Amino acid sequence: MRRPRIITLLTDFGNQDAYVGVMKGVIIGINPTANIIDICHSIPPQDIFNGAYLLSTSYKYFPKDTIHVAIVDPGVGSKRAIVCAETRDYLFLVPDNGILSFIVREEKLKRIFRVTNSRYFLASPCTTFHGRDVFAPVAAHLSLGIKPQQLGNKLNHLKTLDMPQPEHKNTGHLEGQIISIDRFGNLITNITRVHIEQHIIKQMQNRGKGSGVRGQESEIRSHIPCTSKNKMLLPYSTTETTIGGKKIRGLSTTYVNVQVGKPLILFGSAGFLEVSVNQGNAQKYFNVDKGDTITMRRVD
Amino acid sequence: MRRPRIITLLTDFGNQDAYVGVMKGVIIGINPTANIIDICHSIPPQDIFNGAYLLSTSYKYFPKDTIHVAIVDPGVGSKRAIVCAETRDYLFLVPDNGILSFIVREEKLKRIFRVTNSRYFLASPCTTFHGRDVFAPVAAHLSLGIKPQQLGNKLNHLKTLDMPQPEHKNTGHLEGQIISIDRFGNLITNITRVHIEQHIIKQMQNRGKGSGVRGQESEIRSHIPCTSKNKMLLPYSTTETTIGGKKIRGLSTTYVNVQVGKPLILFGSAGFLEVSVNQGNAQKYFNVDKGDTITMRRVD
Amino acid sequence: MRRPRIITLLTDFGNQDAYVGVMKGVIIGINPTANIIDICHSIPPQDIFNGAYLLSTSYKYFPKDTIHVAIVDPGVGSKRAIVCAETRDYLFLVPDNGILSFIVREEKLKRIFRVTNSRYFLASPCTTFHGRDVFAPVAAHLSLGIKPQQLGNKLNHLKTLDMPQPEHKNTGHLEGQIISIDRFGNLITNITRVHIEQHIIKQMQNRGKGSGVRGQESEIRSHIPCTSKNKMLLPYSTTETTIGGKKIRGLSTTYVNVQVGKPLILFGSAGFLEVSVNQGNAQKYFNVDKGDTITMRRVD
Repeated sequence: MRRPRIITLLTDFGNQDAYVGVMKGVIIGINPTANIIDICHSIPPQDIFNGAYLLSTSYKYFPKDTIHVAIVDPGVGSKRAIVCAETRDYLFLVPDNGILSFIVREEKLKRIFRVTNSRYFLASPCTTFHGRDVFAPVAAHLSLGIKPQQLGNKLNHLKTLDMPQPEHKNTGHLEGQIISIDRFGNLITNITRVHIEQHIIKQMQNRGKGSGVRGQESEIRSHIPCTSKNKMLLPYSTTETTIGGKKIRGLSTTYVNVQVGKPLILFGSAGFLEVSVNQGNAQKYFNVDKGDTITMRRVD
Repeated sequence: MRRPRIITLLTDFGNQDAYVGVMKGVIIGINPTANIIDICHSIPPQDIFNGAYLLSTSYKYFPKDTIHVAIVDPGVGSKRAIVCAETRDYLFLVPDNGILSFIVREEKLKRIFRVTNSRYFLASPCTTFHGRDVFAPVAAHLSLGIKPQQLGNKLNHLKTLDMPQPEHKNTGHLEGQIISIDRFGNLITNITRVHIEQHIIKQMQNRGKGSGVRGQESEIRSHIPCTSKNKMLLPYSTTETTIGGKKIRGLSTTYVNVQVGKPLILFGSAGFLEVSVNQGNAQKYFNVDKGDTITMRRVD
Repeated sequence: MRRPRIITLLTDFGNQDAYVGVMKGVIIGINPTANIIDICHSIPPQDIFNGAYLLSTSYKYFPKDTIHVAIVDPGVGSKRAIVCAETRDYLFLVPDNGILSFIVREEKLKRIFRVTNSRYFLASPCTTFHGRDVFAPVAAHLSLGIKPQQLGNKLNHLKTLDMPQPEHKNTGHLEGQIISIDRFGNLITNITRVHIEQHIIKQMQNRGKGSGVRGQESEIRSHIPCTSKNKMLLPYSTTETTIGGKKIRGLSTTYVNVQVGKPLILFGSAGFLEVSVNQGNAQKYFNVDKGDTITMRRVD
């Protein structure tokens, strides 16, 4: 038996209406064996950035050939393009509004096609619900085996969002932002291991004029992604982080490194630095919100 | 391979409990190949009207032979009937309380059966959870091929809700109501193109004593359903709509016809007149709620 | 065709993030034919008791050989065990933190294995998301046919929660607690028919010094579980229940036994005594919360 093709759905359509169910009806009407999996439908309305972030944390956990449909689409009914972007392993069917901004930082897009061939749309698409009338039928046809190039002409570039990047400040601080807050109140920042390593290396260079940095650098780079080891190398244990006016010393490897109700910092499951409270809610603890600043500095 | 049968679920059971999951367990235990698709489970508790509306916007996007199970059932455990209603393309398994009120306006019911044959129920059905003990197993058996007539005796009529209808007022206004508000704050009214066309024709008849109306009438009737064309015929561009004490001039064909944050009116994806705010929330903008009035008049 | 294996998911991951979708991606990547069914993902964060309750109300409605994955896991990343517990009909894949506390009261656990064989995990599991890196792949491998004993060594005992039990008070009252509140505001208590029967028998023994109790006892025990019969035996019609400072006389068999907006007590679909308001919300009506007390006494 041929393996049924996976279609994932990520939207800001919510769960209070029938919009997502309707899309599934359209898909299954065209490809009865499609395997449709919800990634998330609770993206805040029109919050492309949040959609882009959540898509980036999930797409690569799906099998090869999965068709990822992501619709956060404030421009529906305008001249904004709908695109089918192809990577080595996946197809992405999305509005061209930056929703792939995180993904294009780690994936090479092989080809991009503008989706214009109305042969694969429902008849007379409505200007306010392309999810039903364009995305769903096109995804279903892709899952049946049509090729992206059948959807329309090639595009050379995708629009990308203006992504806030952590900065190495002259004061010796690394400054990042909270980019997402999950259900548990965990504060996910835009700081990765690479940013911290670069920051430490810069500081070393400033102080030691480069002497001996090379060896330490490779030691630093050997840190593994995600919080999957129990041992923490020195540089990480000597950080001081400021968020919401409060300070946290050091980095943890798991929630239970601190007592229940106490705050901690670790690298979360998406590879970003996260601020948490063991069995608590860091958003409430620190009284912060998306976009707020987090700063780190090395303290020896 | 036989195409697996689709069973859709629409309920007011919410997502915070296990009620929907339990129903799926029962279905899949009886028919392991059933393809269960959620339409919506966030109907406000006991809000039959909202369930009826959402079901009407979604049922026809599913393939032929789909079994639609819709449970908003304040009368569970009473003598209210459970019915299986058959249309040309679908089976509906619902409590007889008006939840098909929108659908019976556009679909001919071929036959209706009262569901009483306990052979297809779980043993000793509980009086408070027919979703698990009656609807789920009956839907599963229907998906395996039993015939509606095996469920019980024929019924001649279904109960229907008292549906608010737009009115042509002597003042020359067309007056409708907000019947649904979606996640984005879009205000969905009970006004369709037909109501507006009838209203314009009435006005023409009143003024011109009928001369020349017939030709214009057919021109008016040629308007297509949904907002799928960019050109707007004259009559639509000359309306003035009042809602929440504010006025909106003209009708739009898509959100981006107006600036971000500005209100507009268009025909939505379900064929009803909707009031929206481009990338905003019309419910907050107009400070209105379900049941509130919307009035339109022609301004030349 | 081999019947696809069912994997159910119950978590406190919520619907606002991509955590559940990611788990499904991992499962389907390992076993493309797995049939994944959501039981609930809206368990309040870290509320093991609520997860345990909802799992207990749903697991047995799934077909034999279903793999139930339940993750409410405040100890993720600590030394708490992940276990695979086997009953006659099911496999449970859970953190060892008491989430099976309700189930072990009614099911015999045949064998318990500690899940340690990282061969079935994703590479380098993250300490904060075992749902993705351990539970999902292990569940998928189980659904492909690996045996629980391949996962790790046997365990003899599971941790259990301290479960509040109804008490027979010297004042002649039976005192229970609200253990769950559903979407409709129904107050689910820890009182079952057995507790009430024991209570009545105790009272009889106290009064009649045991004379004639044996016959009545068997009559009392003949009451069926759940509210599936319309006739209520005498003892039940003569109870007085106090909750939130208000009193309710007698027990009902279904919501419509009382007028719309009026409170009632019945045995709910999970076999526990529930306090409801017909077409209303008992939580608001009584202004109570989980953990609050309910007392019953017999009034002849």
